[in-house]
Amino acid sequence: MTSHIDLNSDLGESFGAWRMGEDATMLKIVSSANVACGFHAGDPAGILATLEQAAKCGVSVGAHVAYPDLAGFGRRNMDVTSAELTADVIYQIGALQGLAKAAGTRVTYVKPHGALYNTIAGDARQADAVIAAMLAVDSTLVMMGLAGASVLDRARNAGLPIVAEAFADRAYTPQGTLVSRREAGAVLHDPDLVAARMLRLATEGVIEAIDGSILQLDAQSICIHGDSPGAVAMAEKVREVLIGGGVGIRSFA
Amino acid sequence: MTSHIDLNSDLGESFGAWRMGEDATMLKIVSSANVACGFHAGDPAGILATLEQAAKCGVSVGAHVAYPDLAGFGRRNMDVTSAELTADVIYQIGALQGLAKAAGTRVTYVKPHGALYNTIAGDARQADAVIAAMLAVDSTLVMMGLAGASVLDRARNAGLPIVAEAFADRAYTPQGTLVSRREAGAVLHDPDLVAARMLRLATEGVIEAIDGSILQLDAQSICIHGDSPGAVAMAEKVREVLIGGGVGIRSFA
Amino acid sequence: MTSHIDLNSDLGESFGAWRMGEDATMLKIVSSANVACGFHAGDPAGILATLEQAAKCGVSVGAHVAYPDLAGFGRRNMDVTSAELTADVIYQIGALQGLAKAAGTRVTYVKPHGALYNTIAGDARQADAVIAAMLAVDSTLVMMGLAGASVLDRARNAGLPIVAEAFADRAYTPQGTLVSRREAGAVLHDPDLVAARMLRLATEGVIEAIDGSILQLDAQSICIHGDSPGAVAMAEKVREVLIGGGVGIRSFA
Amino acid sequence: MTSHIDLNSDLGESFGAWRMGEDATMLKIVSSANVACGFHAGDPAGILATLEQAAKCGVSVGAHVAYPDLAGFGRRNMDVTSAELTADVIYQIGALQGLAKAAGTRVTYVKPHGALYNTIAGDARQADAVIAAMLAVDSTLVMMGLAGASVLDRARNAGLPIVAEAFADRAYTPQGTLVSRREAGAVLHDPDLVAARMLRLATEGVIEAIDGSILQLDAQSICIHGDSPGAVAMAEKVREVLIGGGVGIRSFA
Repeated sequence: MTSHIDLNSDLGESFGAWRMGEDATMLKIVSSANVACGFHAGDPAGILATLEQAAKCGVSVGAHVAYPDLAGFGRRNMDVTSAELTADVIYQIGALQGLAKAAGTRVTYVKPHGALYNTIAGDARQADAVIAAMLAVDSTLVMMGLAGASVLDRARNAGLPIVAEAFADRAYTPQGTLVSRREAGAVLHDPDLVAARMLRLATEGVIEAIDGSILQLDAQSICIHGDSPGAVAMAEKVREVLIGGGVGIRSFA
Repeated sequence: MTSHIDLNSDLGESFGAWRMGEDATMLKIVSSANVACGFHAGDPAGILATLEQAAKCGVSVGAHVAYPDLAGFGRRNMDVTSAELTADVIYQIGALQGLAKAAGTRVTYVKPHGALYNTIAGDARQADAVIAAMLAVDSTLVMMGLAGASVLDRARNAGLPIVAEAFADRAYTPQGTLVSRREAGAVLHDPDLVAARMLRLATEGVIEAIDGSILQLDAQSICIHGDSPGAVAMAEKVREVLIGGGVGIRSFA
Repeated sequence: MTSHIDLNSDLGESFGAWRMGEDATMLKIVSSANVACGFHAGDPAGILATLEQAAKCGVSVGAHVAYPDLAGFGRRNMDVTSAELTADVIYQIGALQGLAKAAGTRVTYVKPHGALYNTIAGDARQADAVIAAMLAVDSTLVMMGLAGASVLDRARNAGLPIVAEAFADRAYTPQGTLVSRREAGAVLHDPDLVAARMLRLATEGVIEAIDGSILQLDAQSICIHGDSPGAVAMAEKVREVLIGGGVGIRSFA
Repeated sequence: MTSHIDLNSDLGESFGAWRMGEDATMLKIVSSANVACGFHAGDPAGILATLEQAAKCGVSVGAHVAYPDLAGFGRRNMDVTSAELTADVIYQIGALQGLAKAAGTRVTYVKPHGALYNTIAGDARQADAVIAAMLAVDSTLVMMGLAGASVLDRARNAGLPIVAEAFADRAYTPQGTLVSRREAGAVLHDPDLVAARMLRLATEGVIEAIDGSILQLDAQSICIHGDSPGAVAMAEKVREVLIGGGVGIRSFA
């Protein structure tokens, strides 16, 4: 049971002439911004603009590190070596730290993106490579990961602070994993339902699984999207219902 | 007249499977390493390896920032906006700072590379964009530039420390600029001659121009190359002759 | 005076997860599609999808070749060598030919994009490098360029067919060049006005310059945009007014 | 039993300022050149230069298509979709066709590179995506693959001509697969031994496996390397011994 929770969203994902996401709007909704670092999305000037807005809004900044794959938006698994992955993650964190400094803010956490996020949830080798990168740059960086994923245990055991997140618009299995997007009902579209689920999660620490069973889920952050008008509306609804239910929106870092 | 001078060289310029330069050898010769930041050359794992060697050798680290042009090795002018250039340079410095931290060292200066180096020697707009980037990330960073170039005055007036460099293997005009590579005699190939010129520069503060006139040149660093066996041999000769002449090799930063 | 004219538009400019342009809609409006080739925009799968739609709509396909600059969308001048530029253009034309073959269509013309378009309008060296590329791949390819630009003369003298284009939404100087975007009135926003100007151009061969003088302009194609709802509406209006005025929309190739 | 065989090698793998391979020398040794297409290696101007040399030497040209991964040299598995892979391969073949046309030669076969080569040897989905690309561009293109790999059966069944290759410097298991590079003895270093093995393969159709057993291997081409002085010397020895043994060096295409 908690009286506050974090809302996080992926931002800074425009690239050159291509726009993506409603960063300015989302920065008024969330308390933590997972900011692209140039490997799956984001060019330096665009990232800097998002960081300046985040600083103005008092939103915490995390490094949304990814595989080097602009064409695939970091959504394709890549069989990188541990040395490559560690160095790639250090590079991305450092680049974002530099831009954050220029924007008057700083990087307080790391949330791996896309295929890397999914891979390290279970792949110990790649998880350890990301953890090594974080320890090498700044051991106070918080590792954000899927609630229940083993990467969080590995990070904590390695000495990193951690934060577990839930996905607002995703259905959960009774075991606490996400229902695969390939299955019916995996993604929730009703803002009221989603908001109610998140309020219950924040206040009772439970979520209803896809089979109707009640699942304990220890999450300190909720991931919401902002890449479409519908997504922004859902995000606003989640924030409104949480606050209306007495839950403050506050970053963990 | 000085009893010591800095030797700098471009390092970390391998990329993926492609090797370039003799970093391990050069790090025993120079006192400052201009390390590629991924925009014209250098991948994170390779950069990290070079930084670890630099740390072991006690060699200072500079960010060798460039235009985003791997295919052109940063040697092609690009008409970037000031906002793009400032953000690109911050990104590169930050990325290198992250890797340097992981390697147990730190970035103490910035030396723009290739076309960017040549452009900002005279282009005030682009020079100011690079200076703004340095000030935004760390105002103690030293700007390295061509002795006599206006970018050094602009950097100093903006509050940055500066260091002027001479090129060991290049001929000079009587006005103190480099003889264009398109002209005969622009590049010097005799290690003994080059070393003798650099000893005179370090001890007397002068260099003989291409017309035989004697030129005052105020340089605190000498740029030498390490991208071929001949280049390494020349670098070793310069170091040997300087030390033999009583000039210590020591970084400015 | 003519009873038909070509309408062309830039298409295939999405990249990976980033959408740009209303390709499906525009392919019902235009007779020629300038399709991105991957250097400033366009990934192979997205380009292929656009080409398949173009084939279905009977729209001619041109290679929208560019400098290698995804982050800058090909809008930044790059000081490439002639050998690099020729090879880069051949590469892009060939890649598009391959995809066009797969889509059941073929590449019939070349329209350089962005900074390359502007540069070769007056820079003979770069113009000749593009012309050499076209001759090397397929000397029946049509060079599309700005009406009045010297690149068209150079292309014709080199043996290439040419087509001159006018820009629907741009103001013209009395000399027949485009009014710079930095000046007031450079871009026209009124669909009715734009359509009327294009009908007059198609039927009388003249356009009113920004000072009110009447300018002879020999253009066989009109460039229209499709990258915003307003742009699409203007494109539809231009097509409607042309057809209403007895001018057929037909490709030159 | 044959009186001639093909020798193939990976060429055109320099990139910008980075050199790789001894293309000019190897083009006097081999009968088929697997030419990089820009996705794992090769820039257009460098590829064109290699193609011009290949044309002069009468060496056949194959498209050495790869995953889009310059930093990883195409050696890292990527979980691409079939649509992406098909379009990526078409794009690369087309680009090489354009450059080959300009060089006065043409692309007659396709040899996937690195991780893609290894993956499609057994992964039917990705194999079919490559096959679909070849059929879409030119159904007379020959698929080159590892002797015994299922991709060759799939290609033949789809209507493509095929050619099976053996690796000169690799040890074979009794089952006809390559001994993993992680095991001792996987790579052979003795030019005389390698050349003798290849002569036996060309004349008797057999090769001695790592356990001493004799293996039937139906290969019409032999892959040799040229990326180091030792590799070039081995390649020369293989050619010399084959010719000395009455086996002509001739391309299959």
